[in-house]
Amino acid sequence: MSNAADNSNNTLEKYGWTSVPHDQSVLLKDVSPWDPANYTVSQIQLPESDIAKKVAEYAKERLPEQVFNHSMRVYYYGAAIARKHLPSFVPSLETYFLTCLLHDIGTTQENIHATLLSFEFYGGYLALNLLQDYGAAKEQAESVTEAIIRHQDLGDIGTITTVGQLIQLATLFDNAGANPTLISKETIESIVVAYPRGHWSNCFAHTIEQELTLKPWAHSSAIPKFAEAVAGNKLMEPWDALGSNDTCPSG
Amino acid sequence: MSNAADNSNNTLEKYGWTSVPHDQSVLLKDVSPWDPANYTVSQIQLPESDIAKKVAEYAKERLPEQVFNHSMRVYYYGAAIARKHLPSFVPSLETYFLTCLLHDIGTTQENIHATLLSFEFYGGYLALNLLQDYGAAKEQAESVTEAIIRHQDLGDIGTITTVGQLIQLATLFDNAGANPTLISKETIESIVVAYPRGHWSNCFAHTIEQELTLKPWAHSSAIPKFAEAVAGNKLMEPWDALGSNDTCPSG
Repeated sequence: MSNAADNSNNTLEKYGWTSVPHDQSVLLKDVSPWDPANYTVSQIQLPESDIAKKVAEYAKERLPEQVFNHSMRVYYYGAAIARKHLPSFVPSLETYFLTCLLHDIGTTQENIHATLLSFEFYGGYLALNLLQDYGAAKEQAESVTEAIIRHQDLGDIGTITTVGQLIQLATLFDNAGANPTLISKETIESIVVAYPRGHWSNCFAHTIEQELTLKPWAHSSAIPKFAEAVAGNKLMEPWDALGSNDTCPSG
Repeated sequence: MSNAADNSNNTLEKYGWTSVPHDQSVLLKDVSPWDPANYTVSQIQLPESDIAKKVAEYAKERLPEQVFNHSMRVYYYGAAIARKHLPSFVPSLETYFLTCLLHDIGTTQENIHATLLSFEFYGGYLALNLLQDYGAAKEQAESVTEAIIRHQDLGDIGTITTVGQLIQLATLFDNAGANPTLISKETIESIVVAYPRGHWSNCFAHTIEQELTLKPWAHSSAIPKFAEAVAGNKLMEPWDALGSNDTCPSG
């Protein structure tokens, strides 16, 4: 293979453009429930590139505290899952970080009222434009966009990008306690202390309800009993009340 | 209800922002298989607004002939289904027309190679920008975008816009012969003469294969045995060879 082809393939891999099964049971078939990822927050580095810092600053400024903390927890959970169980996903962790920071940008009060589009579609386009304005490579901006648009597209058939799969795994873990044996209790404790949930379960359930009240046609309706599953997240219950005393930001 | 609220609701309805069940069997539960829509092409008016004409001109210029003809057939099939079976969908037929014209814009050779995004996500984004440049109302542009992004998002759970549901019904009818009793044989014959298929079955199957070869992570992978279902479309077989002698436009 020529150097140009090598570089091209490395670029695609770096930005998460590798196809993986969408079916999580296939993807995780060799993962033992007795061998969870076990890291403290200090053992997981945050990406430190210019684009990572700029987008983190944007997210910190624009997202309500609970949403920002959720976005950071989703990064740490995803990075832990990748390092322990899905090492081929590790090269795209910077793109994954950008995706985490922006995946719920469509749910801010400003943005949820700015459009009739389903929040994840609007969020995807906001991310595409923001990242291009910030000088991100087109392939990276598009990978973040693809993942955000699909981040509530749950299913077992076909394929998805690494970044798209990881955001689904990690958001389902944080929002609904799915695949509970992927990550150790000690890791969760370390992450929820660094980025507290502040009643995230009720907060996010309320956001979904707000989306579907304002936009009854929205794609969030495609996930069965979504708000209930989020509000009833038993895995995270021990830590759900830790953190901010701010009221839930939605509506 | 005040006039402002009336106007606001009429605007939403006109642009297709009414929530309907995504489950086609629920939506069509009162439709008799013995009472198909029965109209000739001349009995179905095309929208004649400025925006409709501008977008039709754009589509005619940019889309390969088979894709343009498919887009027009999808309008006629959808309009027939709405008039006969789903009258509450009729007010949004202009927005539906714009959606038909642009729903496969992501599949042109220029566009399929311009991005790593799944074609329907890129197409939705192109449509949003184009329609806003052409002066369409924001609510209309966004309705077209929402429908294009979701047009391959098949499923039974939750809700969708009228325009989003109609583009799924009509594309599945034209591409895969789904719900065959919705429209009469005479209506199909009238439409395929006006907008011939030109081997559309193989042509579109080839487009899906090209998308998945270039972009193995793409959302088209979520539809099981998609290319095979399209290539094996028995409903449209009697007319599939009619029309253009141009080779299939993809790759």
